Amino acid sequence: MPQQVIFTNAVATTLAAELDRLQPNRVFVLTDENTVGCVWPELAGQLPQATVITIPAGDDNKNLATLSRVWQSLQDNGATRKSVLVNLGGGMVTDLGGFAAATFKRGMRFINVPTSLLGAVDAAVGGKTGINFNDLKNEIGTFKEAETVIISTRFFSTLPESELKSGFAEMLKHGLLDSKDAYRHLLASDFQTADAEQQLTLLEQSVNVKRRIVELDPCEKGLRRALNLGHTVGHAFESLALHRNRPIAHGYAVAWGLVAETVLSHIEMQFPSTLLYELAATVYRIYGAFPITCDDYPALLRYMRHDKKSEHGEYNFSLLRDIGDVVTGHACDEETVKTALDIYRDLMHI
Amino acid sequence: MPQQVIFTNAVATTLAAELDRLQPNRVFVLTDENTVGCVWPELAGQLPQATVITIPAGDDNKNLATLSRVWQSLQDNGATRKSVLVNLGGGMVTDLGGFAAATFKRGMRFINVPTSLLGAVDAAVGGKTGINFNDLKNEIGTFKEAETVIISTRFFSTLPESELKSGFAEMLKHGLLDSKDAYRHLLASDFQTADAEQQLTLLEQSVNVKRRIVELDPCEKGLRRALNLGHTVGHAFESLALHRNRPIAHGYAVAWGLVAETVLSHIEMQFPSTLLYELAATVYRIYGAFPITCDDYPALLRYMRHDKKSEHGEYNFSLLRDIGDVVTGHACDEETVKTALDIYRDLMHI
Repeated sequence: MPQQVIFTNAVATTLAAELDRLQPNRVFVLTDENTVGCVWPELAGQLPQATVITIPAGDDNKNLATLSRVWQSLQDNGATRKSVLVNLGGGMVTDLGGFAAATFKRGMRFINVPTSLLGAVDAAVGGKTGINFNDLKNEIGTFKEAETVIISTRFFSTLPESELKSGFAEMLKHGLLDSKDAYRHLLASDFQTADAEQQLTLLEQSVNVKRRIVELDPCEKGLRRALNLGHTVGHAFESLALHRNRPIAHGYAVAWGLVAETVLSHIEMQFPSTLLYELAATVYRIYGAFPITCDDYPALLRYMRHDKKSEHGEYNFSLLRDIGDVVTGHACDEETVKTALDIYRDLMHI
Repeated sequence: MPQQVIFTNAVATTLAAELDRLQPNRVFVLTDENTVGCVWPELAGQLPQATVITIPAGDDNKNLATLSRVWQSLQDNGATRKSVLVNLGGGMVTDLGGFAAATFKRGMRFINVPTSLLGAVDAAVGGKTGINFNDLKNEIGTFKEAETVIISTRFFSTLPESELKSGFAEMLKHGLLDSKDAYRHLLASDFQTADAEQQLTLLEQSVNVKRRIVELDPCEKGLRRALNLGHTVGHAFESLALHRNRPIAHGYAVAWGLVAETVLSHIEMQFPSTLLYELAATVYRIYGAFPITCDDYPALLRYMRHDKKSEHGEYNFSLLRDIGDVVTGHACDEETVKTALDIYRDLMHI
């Protein structure tokens, strides 16, 4: 696999060794206001020469103004193509920092050190970088892989429970894409209460699902859309929640989206109904339900048509024939999507 | 060669055929206020569905504010990854437009149609895209090749003489990097007064020198620095002229830089003196001289140390052993650079 991913809870020494290997002329660390206090002190001793760039936290700040500040800091502190940027934080930091590095002097190297579960399992691996633009998520960006991604679970104990749940939804998705054995193992494990080393083992299995897919299709021309499982409906739920002024976490939206798209998989691809019921029950137990009525259908359908990966305004989905057996770019008609939303509501006791 | 480059003076029909091949869902044309009036009317008939985005002309506008406006226009008009952006203009338009396309939704396709000689011979081919940032040229950007570059000479008759001369300096550089025969042929031709078809033949030979080098080293890790010939001193001359509030055209700076760096090549690499004298006389005849005194040396040396491609603050040059025989990344000491500037002044009758 071309992008190096290291799974370890010895983050400080691993990062120091990676920097020693890359021999940068200068080291920069990008972090946010939440992370700098609780994570950076653990690593600072190993990186005495690093210049720390701290940006405001949160997806609202994943924008051009913040990006400009990062470019400016790199420039002011003499960054060159021989320098390395370490992105230390959640998905917001690794996405924005990866884009800053990919475009500074047409490309400097970067290392991702995700500190959240969602960042580790999704954003930090696979070469997608970017920022939001005019409230459209990840509208501006590029495909550029980090030199190295250092994945650990040692910072998870500082995360709120809702963030662990949010990341776990992507792990559910990877389990569905992987194999029956892996999926069974994941459901049987209690990820949230497992210790850091047990979590790391589960996380490694999950991240490797994404890595195998990305390696085959780095620029999302086809197969990579498998990773979009749960996201077409999930994004629509997110947009609707935002419109209601009651935003929901991305991972929760994905969990609910997985249920709706597994219903679609059952209708269109004969995905086994027992597996569908089991998934719906698991999601309901962990995440509760996202409440919708049929009055919301027109808005949800509109959001699905505008999805970045959609073509010609159709409803496009990645669906499952079975666990580990995905079909990408499957077009559904409007009535089928509405039926799936009806069944989603039944399964979620709405 | 991976990037398609078409040399033709039938621009409108070629562009229409290329768009037909690429089958975009929408076509956008990026152009500037100078180009839209004199060039676009020739092509508009073949592209009835295109959305035209016009930006202010000039390198001063190759910045983040203009880039944002282009992203905004693409977004407002429904551009997707299946759309194509046609960059129609000089190097400013192809650099900024290429970067806008490379980063919009993580990458849409683009076609470059350079309308200036400098744009055709340099900016439009080779995958460098970008914008200026805080007065540093091309500080932010990426490497991304156009789907197709359509190179013609049919718009050159509208260019002022100084712009033709500016582009011709890059042709001189390519001739020096190419072979004795090609260089002789170029000096013997009177490019400025040749007709459009003769110009196109010379231009094709020149552009292919760059293409051969870029193909071997697309991301400027080594050999591509050969194309930097004349530019380390040339950029320093440009910066000094800017500091004097009397800016000079990039191509003129390159022509003078070629003389200074050929002097260095003679000192360090035994480049033949007869060829040096001939080049100096040619440059003096076409461009006159850029006036410097030894009081300017400290500033010039400082600019050379800050060149984007320099490492560790050394003086780094691409130099010639002979025509067609280049050495990249050659470090010179300060005294040698000063000596070369002394000889440059002699050769330029300053």
